[in-house]
Amino acid sequence: MKLISVPGLVRIKPGALDRLGLYLRRPGLLRVLVLASTGLPGPLAAMVRDGLAREGVAVAGWSEVADNRFEDAAAAFGRMPKKIAAIVGIGGGKALDMAKYLAFLARLPYYAVPTSLSNDGFCSPQASLTLGGKRRSLAAALPQGVVIDVAACLTAPRKFWLSGVGDLASKLTAVFDWKLAFHHRGEPVDDLAALLSDATVRQFLGSPGFDAQGMTLLGTALMLNGIAMEICGSSRPASGSEHLISHALDATAKKPKLHGLQVGLAAYVVSRLQGQQTEILARLFEETGFFEAIRQDPFSEADWLEAVRLAPTIKEDFFTVLSMRDCLAEVRGIIRNDPRLAGCFVD
Amino acid sequence: MKLISVPGLVRIKPGALDRLGLYLRRPGLLRVLVLASTGLPGPLAAMVRDGLAREGVAVAGWSEVADNRFEDAAAAFGRMPKKIAAIVGIGGGKALDMAKYLAFLARLPYYAVPTSLSNDGFCSPQASLTLGGKRRSLAAALPQGVVIDVAACLTAPRKFWLSGVGDLASKLTAVFDWKLAFHHRGEPVDDLAALLSDATVRQFLGSPGFDAQGMTLLGTALMLNGIAMEICGSSRPASGSEHLISHALDATAKKPKLHGLQVGLAAYVVSRLQGQQTEILARLFEETGFFEAIRQDPFSEADWLEAVRLAPTIKEDFFTVLSMRDCLAEVRGIIRNDPRLAGCFVD
Amino acid sequence: MKLISVPGLVRIKPGALDRLGLYLRRPGLLRVLVLASTGLPGPLAAMVRDGLAREGVAVAGWSEVADNRFEDAAAAFGRMPKKIAAIVGIGGGKALDMAKYLAFLARLPYYAVPTSLSNDGFCSPQASLTLGGKRRSLAAALPQGVVIDVAACLTAPRKFWLSGVGDLASKLTAVFDWKLAFHHRGEPVDDLAALLSDATVRQFLGSPGFDAQGMTLLGTALMLNGIAMEICGSSRPASGSEHLISHALDATAKKPKLHGLQVGLAAYVVSRLQGQQTEILARLFEETGFFEAIRQDPFSEADWLEAVRLAPTIKEDFFTVLSMRDCLAEVRGIIRNDPRLAGCFVD
Amino acid sequence: MKLISVPGLVRIKPGALDRLGLYLRRPGLLRVLVLASTGLPGPLAAMVRDGLAREGVAVAGWSEVADNRFEDAAAAFGRMPKKIAAIVGIGGGKALDMAKYLAFLARLPYYAVPTSLSNDGFCSPQASLTLGGKRRSLAAALPQGVVIDVAACLTAPRKFWLSGVGDLASKLTAVFDWKLAFHHRGEPVDDLAALLSDATVRQFLGSPGFDAQGMTLLGTALMLNGIAMEICGSSRPASGSEHLISHALDATAKKPKLHGLQVGLAAYVVSRLQGQQTEILARLFEETGFFEAIRQDPFSEADWLEAVRLAPTIKEDFFTVLSMRDCLAEVRGIIRNDPRLAGCFVD
Repeated sequence: MKLISVPGLVRIKPGALDRLGLYLRRPGLLRVLVLASTGLPGPLAAMVRDGLAREGVAVAGWSEVADNRFEDAAAAFGRMPKKIAAIVGIGGGKALDMAKYLAFLARLPYYAVPTSLSNDGFCSPQASLTLGGKRRSLAAALPQGVVIDVAACLTAPRKFWLSGVGDLASKLTAVFDWKLAFHHRGEPVDDLAALLSDATVRQFLGSPGFDAQGMTLLGTALMLNGIAMEICGSSRPASGSEHLISHALDATAKKPKLHGLQVGLAAYVVSRLQGQQTEILARLFEETGFFEAIRQDPFSEADWLEAVRLAPTIKEDFFTVLSMRDCLAEVRGIIRNDPRLAGCFVD
Repeated sequence: MKLISVPGLVRIKPGALDRLGLYLRRPGLLRVLVLASTGLPGPLAAMVRDGLAREGVAVAGWSEVADNRFEDAAAAFGRMPKKIAAIVGIGGGKALDMAKYLAFLARLPYYAVPTSLSNDGFCSPQASLTLGGKRRSLAAALPQGVVIDVAACLTAPRKFWLSGVGDLASKLTAVFDWKLAFHHRGEPVDDLAALLSDATVRQFLGSPGFDAQGMTLLGTALMLNGIAMEICGSSRPASGSEHLISHALDATAKKPKLHGLQVGLAAYVVSRLQGQQTEILARLFEETGFFEAIRQDPFSEADWLEAVRLAPTIKEDFFTVLSMRDCLAEVRGIIRNDPRLAGCFVD
Repeated sequence: MKLISVPGLVRIKPGALDRLGLYLRRPGLLRVLVLASTGLPGPLAAMVRDGLAREGVAVAGWSEVADNRFEDAAAAFGRMPKKIAAIVGIGGGKALDMAKYLAFLARLPYYAVPTSLSNDGFCSPQASLTLGGKRRSLAAALPQGVVIDVAACLTAPRKFWLSGVGDLASKLTAVFDWKLAFHHRGEPVDDLAALLSDATVRQFLGSPGFDAQGMTLLGTALMLNGIAMEICGSSRPASGSEHLISHALDATAKKPKLHGLQVGLAAYVVSRLQGQQTEILARLFEETGFFEAIRQDPFSEADWLEAVRLAPTIKEDFFTVLSMRDCLAEVRGIIRNDPRLAGCFVD
Repeated sequence: MKLISVPGLVRIKPGALDRLGLYLRRPGLLRVLVLASTGLPGPLAAMVRDGLAREGVAVAGWSEVADNRFEDAAAAFGRMPKKIAAIVGIGGGKALDMAKYLAFLARLPYYAVPTSLSNDGFCSPQASLTLGGKRRSLAAALPQGVVIDVAACLTAPRKFWLSGVGDLASKLTAVFDWKLAFHHRGEPVDDLAALLSDATVRQFLGSPGFDAQGMTLLGTALMLNGIAMEICGSSRPASGSEHLISHALDATAKKPKLHGLQVGLAAYVVSRLQGQQTEILARLFEETGFFEAIRQDPFSEADWLEAVRLAPTIKEDFFTVLSMRDCLAEVRGIIRNDPRLAGCFVD
């Protein structure tokens, strides 16, 4: 039998933010450190402060986080207040990654409270930080608590939700890349993780709306993906060649976009290279307005082709469809000719 | 953080049966005890025997199982051959439950190899056995291995698959009953287990065919349900009032039917009582031919009404929609008047 | 890293019996099943009943145990009262083994409350039961709680304490047999388990009195031995050739004696065969009056020699010093000529 | 049941250093990073390098460690070579603490290879580092491997061994302080951890020689102490008022001495304050020559009294005998008048 960690507390529902104090008080976590995103809307911050106070949970520190540098996390660790019982991360990716890593360093329970669902980072066992200026995925631990206020998430701009949809969709191509790595290189696939990851996308497909139910399903799906990574001990079920392309875009594009918008579109293109699941992705992206959103702020074709060229070199020893052949010309053809991508790229 | 067990090896794909020997040899399990269903088709048995022999896995014993009595399991434990490295259960529910329990008594790794997917028992942490003549759900452990040969399962009669579909569908009403128990009695709900259970149904809904993909999705869904039970340490995410009705039918009906056919139809009726999710169930049962199959061998209305009357008394201290009001008259009305149920019951 | 289980609650001190109710109430175990040895002294039983009542812990059943048959445990499991929160075993070896096994079957927390310390069974991960009339060491689990009332144990006859001393002393020869198995057969030794086992004997040697401190040290030592077995997953650190001789005596002697008296004396004899640690054992047995107690009720030399002859056949594939050569004549010489053994054997 | 971690591999014996490559190769750890103490004797370094090479274990990096700063560990983490399978720390405290922490950051298996046994840090779940210039005990993890070459340790100066003896002896006063905290403040004591800690000292008392056996027992004792800390999740079983005095000395004395020499002598003094176990400590320190070694390089009385004055302020919310009354005058009297301490202090 294999032992894995899972969050001990999960709440994905409207109104969860207001009850955060309750979720912390019940297990006796009465003194917490909060890391909140710079720009967290005032009403959400107030709701959290009030809720904690109401339940007698003291806030030993409340920091605004604008960046996700390992060096800052280490420094913050050095001057952490004493007798903290738990660390809470509220807001977007950087605050949550910093809070997760600080909790890892301090070996304290971590509560993830995303206020938008733009990617699967809130419940993964890694923290995405820069180290020496370079983006790194550092080993950490799953959160003890996942608290998603579905109503609060619906007040965030729709593009964050679409980004989350894109990140979720990318699991389909990631899992297929994993299978390619097995068939071509013998890299073992953890079927439980792969099937769970696949299931998370499929459960969302049935009701992919920008509404309470769709947000609940998206939160559940992204969380289960984090658990899939915990099951297999790698990011394979969540990240394949589409992530390589996105990382390359981050490194080279003049103006990178939201992670999930990049990996989502890359997943569509990669599905064409893989010859698999293109229709599923197309339907999802059409129903949700994902393609439409891209068209409103299209990618640079030049940036993209450069990214595709670089992608296979981004991660050592990581087999994907991009390792099988030179895909550059193919991608150029897809970008230019696939009718669904019309308007998604500009020169 | 919460630690849970998950199977260390999962294979859900066509041809898995032939590779069983490989799955056992790799971790060095070179001497096994096999419990197979009486009536396991000869070709499947031969495939397993050949596959084990080919990989050098010795069969220390091969028993046919026709019954699932605790007393037999205890006796079999007493005369178990020595130096067994693992126990394999092959076939249907009873063989798998006996093998699971024997492995629990002997604290040996257990490999579940269902050849049909008629319910979620193959990967649950309990074993369903009779004890003193009474059906009991005895604590055991999740299997170390889950090996589902999707092709083999497609050779089993379609009604087994429909039974699995019914068992899966029943998670929707079970989870809603759990939420009722929270709202009316304060019984804590484990959201992770509930959301995972819910997700398992939804991922199947998108492709519910009696084909390789549909069987793979069904196997995945039922397996993840077992893990949901492991997460929360109870059967709540998998079993609610619809299971009470089915247990009552087992106890009183002249001729009980397959477990999943009973709980599936009960889930539909219960969804009407709960006022929730009826349309989802209806669409699933129509698309898969579930209602049609029931009509070909309808239930006795009298048996059913008796079962609904008894259901609330079946399990002590177990709050469901049936605890909220006397539902007998309502159920009679639903059975007689719901057009979808036309032909599903006879006098 | 390796994960092992250890008891969550340990209390080894005078007065612990009276506080048993407190130890159960704190974690909310408010309804328990008690298995007590037939012949448990009335005052001890009364102290437990009163203590449980005082803390509001209900006794759902109180059974007297005179035998340790698997078949009885299975039957008791079948008629176990409902809603039990924990199982408590009080008294001597058989009651504790039955309680431990029943808790394993029911997957309930088990509290071991030995009232004498005649062997190391109270905190081992196995239960010693008969199965089909044959003594077997069945896989179970460590107790959740170990509660040893040192004062109560001092009211038990001294020979039980001496038996515990003998069982503890036998770890020295058991560990050496393990090392022989490594050197001659490559059987892997778990050094952590072996060193811990060895340490348990040595910590007792400094203060081996039949008094509160000596009893506390003995209880600690025997408990840590159980944990040593849990660490390595076998009985190797606790049981070697001296246990084989004792098992053979149980099978063939007209009147077997206390387990620890048999293995203790056998350990002394085996230490002569091993050419190791004889002086440590001699000093311990002289200081504690172990030899003297044997002399007051000596062994039959014929029984012993028969047992030594049988011992190597008792356990398949289990290498010890007895596997290295025919030791019978040697043992006869030791028994007859070692001055320390004078009077320990009669014709 | 409680789950704890223990090292998966333990080797405490002469010649272990030469076999390190074997211990790494067996589990497939074929590329390692080594952190070695500055000043590690050349022959020991050569033995390790040769042994690793002989078994095909590649050394991806070999760093000399002279300091134990968190900031250095963080920087080293940033430039760690890729594809490392394990981290090995060889030598004294600082190298081992840095290696342990680096392994924690990188979530890699850590192998502790102390070449002297001057304290219990090699197998504790914390790393002692400075953070912002202040000594801190940072959460980390137990080592996966503990490899102690008893012969190598005997080539280290005897004072290191005496320091280890002093650190071990301090467990007696630490455990008693813990019990005081329970009786006066209700702080819960984990009896299993306390009894194990106590047992580690007692097992050493029987054979406290500067020889192969004494070194083996000392290594075992210090390692089991680390496991005691893991069991209870705090340093309570290993560190009490005598450690506070030593930390105060480190902060204020002109020339602090080896940690174990400080805590050992402090333990003797504290035992007088506690009115417990003084004779046990006295006998141990006389037999081993501990007092004699102190006399050859005595402490400053003024430094000591200042340290005793500061000690209760060192650690917030940490009850010890020093919290019960102002002990300064008492300690002055003990230092000046206890005949065993004659010559251990100078003006």
